[in-house]
Amino acid sequence: MKNKNISTFIACEAAYDEADIVLFGIPFDGTTSFRPGTRFAMQAIRPDSYGLETYSPYLQRDLEDTRVFDGGEVELPFGNTEKAMQEILDYTRQVVADGKKFMMVGGEHLVSLPTIQAAYEKYPNLHVIHLDAHTDLRQEFLGEELSHATVIRRCHDFLGDGRIFQFGIRSGTKEEFDWAKEHTHLEPFTATTLQETIEKLRDVPVYITIDLDVLDPSIFPGTGTPEPGGWTYRELMEAIQSFQSLNHIVAADVVELSPQYDVSGGSTAVACKTIREMLLTLAK
Amino acid sequence: MKNKNISTFIACEAAYDEADIVLFGIPFDGTTSFRPGTRFAMQAIRPDSYGLETYSPYLQRDLEDTRVFDGGEVELPFGNTEKAMQEILDYTRQVVADGKKFMMVGGEHLVSLPTIQAAYEKYPNLHVIHLDAHTDLRQEFLGEELSHATVIRRCHDFLGDGRIFQFGIRSGTKEEFDWAKEHTHLEPFTATTLQETIEKLRDVPVYITIDLDVLDPSIFPGTGTPEPGGWTYRELMEAIQSFQSLNHIVAADVVELSPQYDVSGGSTAVACKTIREMLLTLAK
Amino acid sequence: MKNKNISTFIACEAAYDEADIVLFGIPFDGTTSFRPGTRFAMQAIRPDSYGLETYSPYLQRDLEDTRVFDGGEVELPFGNTEKAMQEILDYTRQVVADGKKFMMVGGEHLVSLPTIQAAYEKYPNLHVIHLDAHTDLRQEFLGEELSHATVIRRCHDFLGDGRIFQFGIRSGTKEEFDWAKEHTHLEPFTATTLQETIEKLRDVPVYITIDLDVLDPSIFPGTGTPEPGGWTYRELMEAIQSFQSLNHIVAADVVELSPQYDVSGGSTAVACKTIREMLLTLAK
Amino acid sequence: MKNKNISTFIACEAAYDEADIVLFGIPFDGTTSFRPGTRFAMQAIRPDSYGLETYSPYLQRDLEDTRVFDGGEVELPFGNTEKAMQEILDYTRQVVADGKKFMMVGGEHLVSLPTIQAAYEKYPNLHVIHLDAHTDLRQEFLGEELSHATVIRRCHDFLGDGRIFQFGIRSGTKEEFDWAKEHTHLEPFTATTLQETIEKLRDVPVYITIDLDVLDPSIFPGTGTPEPGGWTYRELMEAIQSFQSLNHIVAADVVELSPQYDVSGGSTAVACKTIREMLLTLAK
Amino acid sequence: MKNKNISTFIACEAAYDEADIVLFGIPFDGTTSFRPGTRFAMQAIRPDSYGLETYSPYLQRDLEDTRVFDGGEVELPFGNTEKAMQEILDYTRQVVADGKKFMMVGGEHLVSLPTIQAAYEKYPNLHVIHLDAHTDLRQEFLGEELSHATVIRRCHDFLGDGRIFQFGIRSGTKEEFDWAKEHTHLEPFTATTLQETIEKLRDVPVYITIDLDVLDPSIFPGTGTPEPGGWTYRELMEAIQSFQSLNHIVAADVVELSPQYDVSGGSTAVACKTIREMLLTLAK
Amino acid sequence: MKNKNISTFIACEAAYDEADIVLFGIPFDGTTSFRPGTRFAMQAIRPDSYGLETYSPYLQRDLEDTRVFDGGEVELPFGNTEKAMQEILDYTRQVVADGKKFMMVGGEHLVSLPTIQAAYEKYPNLHVIHLDAHTDLRQEFLGEELSHATVIRRCHDFLGDGRIFQFGIRSGTKEEFDWAKEHTHLEPFTATTLQETIEKLRDVPVYITIDLDVLDPSIFPGTGTPEPGGWTYRELMEAIQSFQSLNHIVAADVVELSPQYDVSGGSTAVACKTIREMLLTLAK
Repeated sequence: MKNKNISTFIACEAAYDEADIVLFGIPFDGTTSFRPGTRFAMQAIRPDSYGLETYSPYLQRDLEDTRVFDGGEVELPFGNTEKAMQEILDYTRQVVADGKKFMMVGGEHLVSLPTIQAAYEKYPNLHVIHLDAHTDLRQEFLGEELSHATVIRRCHDFLGDGRIFQFGIRSGTKEEFDWAKEHTHLEPFTATTLQETIEKLRDVPVYITIDLDVLDPSIFPGTGTPEPGGWTYRELMEAIQSFQSLNHIVAADVVELSPQYDVSGGSTAVACKTIREMLLTLAK
Repeated sequence: MKNKNISTFIACEAAYDEADIVLFGIPFDGTTSFRPGTRFAMQAIRPDSYGLETYSPYLQRDLEDTRVFDGGEVELPFGNTEKAMQEILDYTRQVVADGKKFMMVGGEHLVSLPTIQAAYEKYPNLHVIHLDAHTDLRQEFLGEELSHATVIRRCHDFLGDGRIFQFGIRSGTKEEFDWAKEHTHLEPFTATTLQETIEKLRDVPVYITIDLDVLDPSIFPGTGTPEPGGWTYRELMEAIQSFQSLNHIVAADVVELSPQYDVSGGSTAVACKTIREMLLTLAK
Repeated sequence: MKNKNISTFIACEAAYDEADIVLFGIPFDGTTSFRPGTRFAMQAIRPDSYGLETYSPYLQRDLEDTRVFDGGEVELPFGNTEKAMQEILDYTRQVVADGKKFMMVGGEHLVSLPTIQAAYEKYPNLHVIHLDAHTDLRQEFLGEELSHATVIRRCHDFLGDGRIFQFGIRSGTKEEFDWAKEHTHLEPFTATTLQETIEKLRDVPVYITIDLDVLDPSIFPGTGTPEPGGWTYRELMEAIQSFQSLNHIVAADVVELSPQYDVSGGSTAVACKTIREMLLTLAK
Repeated sequence: MKNKNISTFIACEAAYDEADIVLFGIPFDGTTSFRPGTRFAMQAIRPDSYGLETYSPYLQRDLEDTRVFDGGEVELPFGNTEKAMQEILDYTRQVVADGKKFMMVGGEHLVSLPTIQAAYEKYPNLHVIHLDAHTDLRQEFLGEELSHATVIRRCHDFLGDGRIFQFGIRSGTKEEFDWAKEHTHLEPFTATTLQETIEKLRDVPVYITIDLDVLDPSIFPGTGTPEPGGWTYRELMEAIQSFQSLNHIVAADVVELSPQYDVSGGSTAVACKTIREMLLTLAK
Repeated sequence: MKNKNISTFIACEAAYDEADIVLFGIPFDGTTSFRPGTRFAMQAIRPDSYGLETYSPYLQRDLEDTRVFDGGEVELPFGNTEKAMQEILDYTRQVVADGKKFMMVGGEHLVSLPTIQAAYEKYPNLHVIHLDAHTDLRQEFLGEELSHATVIRRCHDFLGDGRIFQFGIRSGTKEEFDWAKEHTHLEPFTATTLQETIEKLRDVPVYITIDLDVLDPSIFPGTGTPEPGGWTYRELMEAIQSFQSLNHIVAADVVELSPQYDVSGGSTAVACKTIREMLLTLAK
Repeated sequence: MKNKNISTFIACEAAYDEADIVLFGIPFDGTTSFRPGTRFAMQAIRPDSYGLETYSPYLQRDLEDTRVFDGGEVELPFGNTEKAMQEILDYTRQVVADGKKFMMVGGEHLVSLPTIQAAYEKYPNLHVIHLDAHTDLRQEFLGEELSHATVIRRCHDFLGDGRIFQFGIRSGTKEEFDWAKEHTHLEPFTATTLQETIEKLRDVPVYITIDLDVLDPSIFPGTGTPEPGGWTYRELMEAIQSFQSLNHIVAADVVELSPQYDVSGGSTAVACKTIREMLLTLAK
């Protein structure tokens, strides 16, 4: 009775100091051009995670056997994108400096920029696996260089060629698809080359960024920019199972849940289950 | 003009005495721990069933050619689970005693306990085919032995080993999956062993219980505990078509529709179509 | 960064030992006959309370100047009403024994029974002010004596005549209205006799139970059984302001928010503001 | 167990022959220009009527003491307005011929045309009290003479001047307001002249048509064309109480509920309560 | 600043005279028997089309390289089906007379009757490819010959045998399936014979009518009559890609989006993407 | 047929050059801290304005008799508040420079800052009437000086003392209420001093800014931060009628509609009607 009311993702109850993995949310949707709402993702995910079991029959491992600290959500200013990105970068640098792996939950996809950067600063040989419906490779969008539509291009600014592997992409400008041919590995629509990518990245540091709109909108309607023709949940689970062969995953994120666009709660359940599987993957 | 306003599932207009099958609803969701609402299922199903045709192009049979009595919904107390289970048991016993097959529509999955029991009392050699996302094999849940999460375990209490065949299961505790190895036939995720199960059960009395959350939440978002990674509707239809080889189906149920979580009405349509196909299966 | 993710009602950040008032939620809707959902009230209220200011321009006092502990929600079994009532009673007795005032947030109205009982055990001269659309005076409902529709009658069982003062009532059976004439003070529809009631109760221990459906459904649509013709929010605020003359309020509750029936969040805002004003009233 | 599943408005369980009043629904919204949906009104009203009590503390009478037959809904073709109007007229003529009073539930307001006509054929001295937000006095609308926007003008075609009394009107063209000055009694916005109208009509046959959008959209959001600035529910109840002085009410209707625009169910509750009060008024 | 506020489907900005293709909407749902709402389709599609890119990575062509005029929506009377059909026919005849191809967006499926007729008048050898869940081959429905459930039968009235090719059909009466055996090419459930159909129709004038409910309700919940067991979006895209081999597509339509039944916007996104792909197909 | 698809607020069809008033929308909600969505206001308002009549029975004037140009919505960058404010300022300056009055529709309240500034630059003696639930007088909010919560304070930066008149205010920090006592005229809750304010401002240039959350959330649930206890719609109409005595209104705005929080469309109707009345007020 005397404890305060603590709210975490299911089974993520370790103290910070004893944790191997830090889970945190970034409630930012400031550059979302179409329909905002990803700021509410983590707030919906926590209570709904209790509709899951802690045990994964896919990976045959249990979240109860991991040590994850739930750091809540990073507080950010509204209306000032540069300052927000700086605060996310500062937070993530500290987590990395403390020797933790991390699992970030967005927010819009732009918030992966500072978290990938923090991981890159520690692991200069960082490679990125990117699951998404959209290329996110524009040089600028509506006059801004910091945008959900430019985030992977901004990561390329420091990572350079040959480091980014994109799967599931089914929307972008002609220029983006052309640009990708020279600078990233981009497989449109599907993930048939994922297995060979994983072979290649087996022993290098890897960051996995999952824009959940890689899934078909039927599976994941709770997102701002639905793009029909995406993956089934089983296809995503196959990708996650193939990640088990990677020996050096340093961090991951799951972004672009906008829970209010799916009143059934199914999209939030998709996010919860993906986070559970990715936490178990990071904890391996 | 002079008739009262009668409301039935489409084409289920037989009188009780002339009917071969009794269709009835159980508006109970009293042990639902996460999100209640299955009490409203039958109320949504009846009017929406008129969006269907009576003819099934899958089975090439017509509901107009069957004799089904729609018994409405069993009235139950609120807040007293034991009394509610007793009243369902009494009702179903009477239906069985009158020589009818029956089709029950839930309600949460716990309501299958008294209906399976009533069928078992008449057919002691009863076998159960169970389609579900969840194991439902807990010994107790939140301190209660009567719960949607324990229902199949409670059925095992009287049926014993070798009588329960579970398909599509993708969520449960490690303990449940371990327990199942010794006491039930449990196929995780898929239904590849369904065909051989049906061979085995061809001539014994069979009860089929369909928790509609065996379907992926994209197909069936209108449910309390969505669990991603489930079946497509075509996979469920294949299972139903394979049921045509069973020679002694004595009863069936369809449970866990919570219509308010799917404002599109698609989940209610899924329930309606499944009920139509199962009524035609029972009537064969 | 190192703190766990704590979630409270706005400004209710005192530790238990230093607190004057304990705020807690009861996520119970087990006897709700029509439309369930009050179990989700406290979960919606906490984050939305940050849409409020801590300062009340009505009472010209600030929640920051009070010491309230937010005890989260009492965990309860599902489907077993008697056991749930007992656990609420145990919890509340402890709060009262520790010398705290309390503010309970429902849940359906039945949960006021154990909290009023706990207050009564400490203050045998307890009087109850009851704002509601419904009489709640049935002897039993659908065969059960413990029900949202019987709760005030059950309180009368131990409080006796002359202790219960009901306002805003606009729905009930003829029997209930007749019974009230002899056993409670019941003012239908309005609150014109509230002022004289307060005069009378100025120095006795008082418990205030607010069923928010006393408000018109336009003001408070987020409830299971909307009853048109209720109070405006200003009328409720006038009642709360008149409570400032009571010298011995020992506890209060606010019940019957079902947030999912009001997607605008307006009903949750009504509950939050009412809780803020009542906490300031208790803290006086 | 052997009865079919009968569904009625609460307490309207008389057989046709023994009934004094016939309640029936008209699921027609074929000329609705803005947002359709009134076809679903009666289907929502029946189950939700059980959230009411049968006793009215306003009128201090009980629906259990009346004899009302619930005739269900008249089946109509889609897309053919003239044929639909003819079928409603035929149905209502029969009810009137059988010596019954009636209570019709729309549907869009156009459906009052054939029901008022049927009443007029029996009572050539018929007067109409009309509560509405809109004038409904156009000569034609979008090229059609039969429309929700022309219905009262069409009634004037056979009733003539001095028979129609309109209250609450707050929307229309300048031409309609001008026309009303010579042909109807139209009080804009309020009902201050209702009392004197009732004096005047005390002993003549009266039909009362209530377009529920006379209420403010806050009270009644479940309607196709919300018009802010309307009545509170108490103002509507005052009007209904004043109807008690009329000695010869022959029929009434309640139209324009579109339940799907109000997920809270509050608008349906408003319709249910209004129907209960009007049935008690008719039954006097 | 000085231009009026023009609203078009993305990249459909050609003037009428310079356009090759005319895109227009028909906001008609007057014979919809179950749940209306397709009248709102085009209004939802226009703004949401800006969530798409103009470039199709499937067809590797860009809408910016086509010349499409967006003609807005044809204004129609309400409640008079025959007059509405005549006005659509007049409009479409003019478009065809001006030498344009066209892309019509419904509205309910009945609106394809006048547009197919206008195309047929110019191309007497017209063939129709029909993707749908429903046969639409009734002789009459609820007493009316003009209905969403009769539309393809009405087209057969003038096209005759051997001209209509139906795919994806999974709902209809036994009579309709039997009738189809002699008068149309009807493939139930799937599209395995689509390829050979396209071979056959390679050089004749073809009209493609896509009732989006051919898709599974999980992919396309925003429709009035959801019929489970339909196509995935990838299956529809494969059909569209096979259309690229047709040398003489003269017009197409996309019908039966009811956006209000899918609050996620996913169904509207499906309609937008299908329109983009079909415009690129027409423009080839 | 040959015109492009033009979409305006009802009856606002004048060309820019001939217009007296320019109506435009600002789809900005970048500093919204709680629930975003006001960016969608104007997009919802235009089609729903056709549910209104052009004639106001309150003011007895018709919008058809005015000359209003609908300028659509100003395009803005996402995530860069300063740049967005500059672009709004540039746009509004041009409108003012061309000798037009204007009516701006938000967007969050911050967008009133550049439009008030543009009006002030032309009319240095500008006075502001401010209807709102919130003080909006913070010096900064979450570290930012440009915020919906600081907008009136930012206006005071250039307007100075004695120019701002605030009504309906029922939420703010104690500091804000105290600051207002010295720098603005702030009437909490009500508008009893509005009449005398209007006397005082009869002949000076006045800008009227209406944050629609001054209305009670029952009347206007479609807003990000509902604050119970607000005005009825009739109270707002009385304020608007009193504005008719002002001789020099130079501009007005209506802000903070978030249409997605009110699926009934009632809030959008409130915004439409308020815009119509204010356009008629500006046009006087």
